[in-house]
Amino acid sequence: MLKEVDHSQEIINSIKVAIGTDTAVLHEPRFNGNEWTYLKDCLDSTFVSSVGQYVDRFEKELAGYTNAAHAVAVVNGTSALHMALQIVGVKSNDEVLIPSLTFVATANAVRYCGAIPHFVDSDFGTLGIDPVALRDHLKTTTDFINNQCINKQTGRVIRAIVPMHTFGHPVNINEILAVARDFHLVVIEDAAESLGSTVSGKHTGTFGELGIISFNGNKTITTGGGGAIITNNTELAKLAKHLTTTAKLPHRWEYTHDEVGYNYRMPNINAALGCAQLEQLPDFIDAKRHLFVKYQSAFADLPYVRLVSEPVDCHSNYWLQTLILDETIAEERNDILAATNEAGLMTRPIWNLLHNLKPFKGCPRMDLSVAISLEKRLLNLPSSVHLGEENKL
Amino acid sequence: MLKEVDHSQEIINSIKVAIGTDTAVLHEPRFNGNEWTYLKDCLDSTFVSSVGQYVDRFEKELAGYTNAAHAVAVVNGTSALHMALQIVGVKSNDEVLIPSLTFVATANAVRYCGAIPHFVDSDFGTLGIDPVALRDHLKTTTDFINNQCINKQTGRVIRAIVPMHTFGHPVNINEILAVARDFHLVVIEDAAESLGSTVSGKHTGTFGELGIISFNGNKTITTGGGGAIITNNTELAKLAKHLTTTAKLPHRWEYTHDEVGYNYRMPNINAALGCAQLEQLPDFIDAKRHLFVKYQSAFADLPYVRLVSEPVDCHSNYWLQTLILDETIAEERNDILAATNEAGLMTRPIWNLLHNLKPFKGCPRMDLSVAISLEKRLLNLPSSVHLGEENKL
Repeated sequence: MLKEVDHSQEIINSIKVAIGTDTAVLHEPRFNGNEWTYLKDCLDSTFVSSVGQYVDRFEKELAGYTNAAHAVAVVNGTSALHMALQIVGVKSNDEVLIPSLTFVATANAVRYCGAIPHFVDSDFGTLGIDPVALRDHLKTTTDFINNQCINKQTGRVIRAIVPMHTFGHPVNINEILAVARDFHLVVIEDAAESLGSTVSGKHTGTFGELGIISFNGNKTITTGGGGAIITNNTELAKLAKHLTTTAKLPHRWEYTHDEVGYNYRMPNINAALGCAQLEQLPDFIDAKRHLFVKYQSAFADLPYVRLVSEPVDCHSNYWLQTLILDETIAEERNDILAATNEAGLMTRPIWNLLHNLKPFKGCPRMDLSVAISLEKRLLNLPSSVHLGEENKL
Repeated sequence: MLKEVDHSQEIINSIKVAIGTDTAVLHEPRFNGNEWTYLKDCLDSTFVSSVGQYVDRFEKELAGYTNAAHAVAVVNGTSALHMALQIVGVKSNDEVLIPSLTFVATANAVRYCGAIPHFVDSDFGTLGIDPVALRDHLKTTTDFINNQCINKQTGRVIRAIVPMHTFGHPVNINEILAVARDFHLVVIEDAAESLGSTVSGKHTGTFGELGIISFNGNKTITTGGGGAIITNNTELAKLAKHLTTTAKLPHRWEYTHDEVGYNYRMPNINAALGCAQLEQLPDFIDAKRHLFVKYQSAFADLPYVRLVSEPVDCHSNYWLQTLILDETIAEERNDILAATNEAGLMTRPIWNLLHNLKPFKGCPRMDLSVAISLEKRLLNLPSSVHLGEENKL
């Protein structure tokens, strides 16, 4: 089919200019530091599993980096979310407010607690929860009974809210905290994608009661598989550590477990990788921010796209570079995805909106117009650290 | 206090004779093979996480070793149990028969499904479920309604049974299969501790509908943290893979998930370790069996203890060497634990019986006399592979 402008080809050209190479995957990890040394140390010491110094060190250094009082390392971001929800008291048949525009793990973690996701709309700027629309929704659809926020339609308690910092861009967390305060909701911050991203200099994940981070292989830094809970609440941190390590009471040899616990502890070998990666994080973020500048320059002349950039007063890690197509070419999204991937430039759309997935179809939700609009028009671009490193360009 | 015979000192002396050294931990892993090479390959290729060849290879080689049609690698044995229970249809408010004398993970996994553990007694020989006592218990306490086994007292369906091969010694699986057939129970075999143990030449974990294995740091081989589901049922294997990888449907770029899934996939870096360990498994088991012979000889003259040995027609991996104190000195167990550990020889008791733990106190159970007797008298001895290697002795 003949088009006046071949949008796919123009986008391909701009990506190539930005990344300075002809092909690229979406995101690959970078192992330029002490990964090797620390892994070898694990093998030599035989401490690869649930005992070893790297888990403690990783937790301490992660807490230091994020300026949280405590960090608890776990097997992945999903388990971190599961534990965070359970620890703040999310119970069977509660509702939990989560974006429809997020990864499925959030909705799954809510279900692990027996609770019900209640889907919230997004903001065109941050891609995260829109606090203004949410406040209006809660005002008209909820009541206070016994000091709890009750969904008038379902009769269920709305217990918590899980704002997510999409692709590393901070959500409007201060306004969300205000809504949460007014409607008596616990805030669990999903900072899975936003390690290194801050709001007014404060690290994402440290605004809510608990925050969670992911170290999956596609994240800014990786532990193979891994996650963490961060918090300033010492009691909750202790509970997180206890529950994620089979709820065993300390004893020289006795096996007494005082709750239904979980085997969610990050193995030492994965934490060793994390320690090495964390040392390089500031450099990684510099490179990713530099890559954004390159993309911005390369896409400046294409009027039918915009790049997602950090919100005012925020510092983003630019985990995944994100392109939003103009409404006028939204229907070309799949053609652009096909053309870029066929050209060896890996792109992907945003996740399918969760309220449309089979296991969550019947769940409560507010008007989701913005999320629906974004879903149709959003693409992630090649975002690996090495693409943004000066010496590569 | 003066004693005619100082049992603790005699046991300490025998342990030293058996292991040929003065101090030892309970069990440490052995990295003598390609661990280093495979880990370095992960780093060099950047495939450390959810993509990479080692997971597929580990699953294939594990299936080959156990002679199971399929293996699905997961983050740990607990998650393997959780998924196995869910996959065979264990539902909220079902009962699941499990030993009281086992690690807490089994009872926890049952609870993750919303089901209720129903505790079963053990056998003095195998330390695992006693099928004769179990049959008597089920005969008198259950009814068949709609072809399902119903606990007459609670009215709940007894859906499944989870026999465990304690410390690597095979349970009487054939008799348990017969009981399961007669009472319409699904068998999930807990082979967490019994990799390399066989019954009539057939690998433990392949008798039930599904089997699970653990690769925690204290097991015969380790992946840091890890587990696997093994099965000959292709449909169940597919379902296990699907559920443990967020239930995502295959697509070039779309994120469609058709069930509440889990993030339980073993990371590639942990699987790489597993591949190297699996290559050495036959040697490890030879060493562990040799260590048993050494213990047997060293303890031959102490009439007040016996070592647990492999049941007839079984081949045990002798994961943890196990000493049973005579009833006459049962009350000295804690003194012996204290004395051995203070001497630098790490020993531990068996787990606290699960029916006594706070979260499971109200659960149904049969008469547990044997488990109660064993709990008081059982000690694990230093069992590391290197203690049994010829060149160390």
